[in-house]
Amino acid sequence: MKSLIDMSTPVGVWLTEELSLVSRVLFEHLINKHPDVNTLCNELATYKGKMLRPSLLLLSWRVLHPDTETPQSVRVAAGVVELIHLATLVHDDVLDEADLRRGARTINSLRGNEAAVMLGDYLLSSAFLLCSTIKNPDLNLLLGEVTNTLCAGEVVQLSNRNNMDLTQEQYFQIIHDKTASLIAASCEMGGVLGGGNEVQIRVLREFGDKVGTAFQIKDDLLDLLEEENLVGKPVGRDVEKGKLTLPVIVFLQENPDIKSVLLDVMKSGNTKTLREILHSAGSIQTTIEHVNELVTTAVDGVMGEFEGPTVAQMCVMVAGLQTN
Amino acid sequence: MKSLIDMSTPVGVWLTEELSLVSRVLFEHLINKHPDVNTLCNELATYKGKMLRPSLLLLSWRVLHPDTETPQSVRVAAGVVELIHLATLVHDDVLDEADLRRGARTINSLRGNEAAVMLGDYLLSSAFLLCSTIKNPDLNLLLGEVTNTLCAGEVVQLSNRNNMDLTQEQYFQIIHDKTASLIAASCEMGGVLGGGNEVQIRVLREFGDKVGTAFQIKDDLLDLLEEENLVGKPVGRDVEKGKLTLPVIVFLQENPDIKSVLLDVMKSGNTKTLREILHSAGSIQTTIEHVNELVTTAVDGVMGEFEGPTVAQMCVMVAGLQTN
Repeated sequence: MKSLIDMSTPVGVWLTEELSLVSRVLFEHLINKHPDVNTLCNELATYKGKMLRPSLLLLSWRVLHPDTETPQSVRVAAGVVELIHLATLVHDDVLDEADLRRGARTINSLRGNEAAVMLGDYLLSSAFLLCSTIKNPDLNLLLGEVTNTLCAGEVVQLSNRNNMDLTQEQYFQIIHDKTASLIAASCEMGGVLGGGNEVQIRVLREFGDKVGTAFQIKDDLLDLLEEENLVGKPVGRDVEKGKLTLPVIVFLQENPDIKSVLLDVMKSGNTKTLREILHSAGSIQTTIEHVNELVTTAVDGVMGEFEGPTVAQMCVMVAGLQTN
Repeated sequence: MKSLIDMSTPVGVWLTEELSLVSRVLFEHLINKHPDVNTLCNELATYKGKMLRPSLLLLSWRVLHPDTETPQSVRVAAGVVELIHLATLVHDDVLDEADLRRGARTINSLRGNEAAVMLGDYLLSSAFLLCSTIKNPDLNLLLGEVTNTLCAGEVVQLSNRNNMDLTQEQYFQIIHDKTASLIAASCEMGGVLGGGNEVQIRVLREFGDKVGTAFQIKDDLLDLLEEENLVGKPVGRDVEKGKLTLPVIVFLQENPDIKSVLLDVMKSGNTKTLREILHSAGSIQTTIEHVNELVTTAVDGVMGEFEGPTVAQMCVMVAGLQTN
């Protein structure tokens, strides 16, 4: 995926600088008096991605304050949502028994499941501690609610492993809970810290919700479609782990009579054949269209409420999710 | 271990009623819109113990307000510390690969490590959410700090598995971080919610710190000394998991010349022989004396600052830790 930041604009330059400050806040906050903890946290370097959540938090704040110096509380909150995200990645990799992430070995593969469980807990706890330093009770409440939603989403996803009757409604609920909720909360937090009114905060939240949903559908699609070296992690894991994703659900819904054929292909782990079937039935195209529609609706919503270069950067960031 | 509450006093009766209200707060808070989450939380019933942490929080509040109706915020905070404790138990059992707790099967043994990891995360997150509903930023900060300490303690303990050179200082730091810190924070939270002054809060915190340390040394001792049916969980796990506990550290310190003999006995997993060696060398007696001294100092400290039936109940609770 190409960079999500348009560096030809002042907003892009601002965002890049702010993200580097957020990284510093985050990693300095993780420093512990026990060297064993620091050694473990150092392994996180490879987990650092594009920082979508902090970016959207920062931009959501900035649409309300295009000409103000960024307050430290906004950077801290951006660090908080990234920490929560890192915690979920570390525990997800334990759950998925994943060995690779972004082309590097996972914490569980390097240091064992036990260390990965404890590191995830430390990150989760550090996120709450960092959020509490802002001393804004509404923000703590928002964070508590979204992490509860995330965890519940993971539990529901786990309970539905190998559920070959998973409905679209269930799939959307799971990806809302485990992914979109945190992205929506990131936008909402930016709005809350920016002192936005009820409508502005709702618009930002809904933008994040749609973007987050599109993002997860796209991520699931990459697992199915891409080659390993492009994704930086093994592909076809969802099929292997009995996780139904949108193209498969769409296919099963439209072709209930050949359900057993598809399930046999999935069980055999033949991702190539699976791709061909889903391609020729149009299920992959339907999924791509769904992503594109979500992105379009998200952009329309936020452009209807805000204007200027900040919201333009938000839309550039999101446009990267669209595929053809 | 016998009941820690003296039911012949009004404070004992009050505490019993309050603990039942705290349990209700806690389990109602865990109810989720997703039935899968509730099913998993229902497995927690067997994890419910004597509720030492909420008891000490309630009593610490009450020493400052012996004649006031208990505010709901105190019960909520008591539920928060118990939730944190439950979260650590669930993740500890994953780390220890434990099959039994309090005579019943553990969550990891019943539902798998993955579900146990997610349940622990859900409990941790629920604790933060519940704490945030009190809308007291100091309390959130205190909670964030203590959970960070707990997690760091677990990481350090994990890093020191099979470290046969663990010093007393390292051992005390680990048990402070992973156990005493939460018990100390429970007492401190009671003091903070009770509006105690600086000295009162410090005395309560130090009481919890000493009690918590005594509690963990005693717990480690039970793992070594007791028969399985008395403890409700398999014994000798510490030896098996390469965790040095106080009697062994004391022995190694006093008998460095026969270190290899003791390590061979530990490696062989012969808990009976280990007990005999530690008994005859007096290391178990030294450990018991240490517990008793901690309890005496804790009681003296809190009795020097407070008086009346509430502090008496605190001391009764703690006296149960003493052994002869």
